[in-house]
Amino acid sequence: MPASTRDADAAIIREIAAATRRGFASAHPIPYGAQIHDSATGERLVRALNRVVPDHDPTSHAEVRAIRLACRKLQWPNLNGYTLFTTCEPCPMCMTAALFAGIDRVVYGTVVRPPNAKGRPLFKYSAKQFARDSALRCRVDGPIEEALCRALVDDPVVQRYKTRCANDKILL
Amino acid sequence: MPASTRDADAAIIREIAAATRRGFASAHPIPYGAQIHDSATGERLVRALNRVVPDHDPTSHAEVRAIRLACRKLQWPNLNGYTLFTTCEPCPMCMTAALFAGIDRVVYGTVVRPPNAKGRPLFKYSAKQFARDSALRCRVDGPIEEALCRALVDDPVVQRYKTRCANDKILL
Repeated sequence: MPASTRDADAAIIREIAAATRRGFASAHPIPYGAQIHDSATGERLVRALNRVVPDHDPTSHAEVRAIRLACRKLQWPNLNGYTLFTTCEPCPMCMTAALFAGIDRVVYGTVVRPPNAKGRPLFKYSAKQFARDSALRCRVDGPIEEALCRALVDDPVVQRYKTRCANDKILL
Repeated sequence: MPASTRDADAAIIREIAAATRRGFASAHPIPYGAQIHDSATGERLVRALNRVVPDHDPTSHAEVRAIRLACRKLQWPNLNGYTLFTTCEPCPMCMTAALFAGIDRVVYGTVVRPPNAKGRPLFKYSAKQFARDSALRCRVDGPIEEALCRALVDDPVVQRYKTRCANDKILL
């Protein structure tokens, strides 16, 4: 990857991380934020945060919401020509949504595959492996600005909220 | 599985197949329908069809929509105690959504892993393997009423519509 692309990617991840951190003051402090940008011009189309709890919707991950918002904005269910940026590696639901949407490239900040009570990760496949194993095409880049995104995940406000959600059997 | 469970499952799949076929008269004739039922009483909570094109939303698969509608109805993002029935084996997006939602069991009619232009299936993992590979738990049963569900997929009205969508790079 050219250094200029890596610099541009890092700037966008920093922007999402800042917006995600601003959400820590809300009733739903989550470390998951995403943006969709025009792959050619770099222009931002949409930003979204995870809203599983406020929306009562287990599919309201940041990436899925960004894809839905972007398609609504374009009035078209295909995002060829766009790149999805996200603070954390997409889960298989979000990665499949990106593949179905025809997204060019996914860029993630850090890897968080939350383990279950026995310490086993919820899903076996990384986003990169999952994309490689599909006949659909999407380049996956990351981690980038890893420490910054990891700090979002590890923030005590987030950790307390996640524990509360887990007690209610809600996965974010 | 007890014969009574298998009979009850088959009756629900037939009900969804009939509702899905009624949609063939619409501008969006698709073979994908889903329902969510109370696992204990068998009572139906919601039914949904795929709406990728009318909603301009690549995540509007029947199963994801059923999960969203069910959670909205319950005002809660967890569907423990519920079973998801669907005419066709869930893709990894829908299967991950079911796992996140805490659905007890998924029952599907037939297997359709649509191939790309080179004949390679879009996703490598069956719903059963995908669920087995996850630390989250969900039993997956099927195929059931396979010929009936396969007939939905193979219907000429559906095939013509899918070709039109594929030309527009829209995956259903």
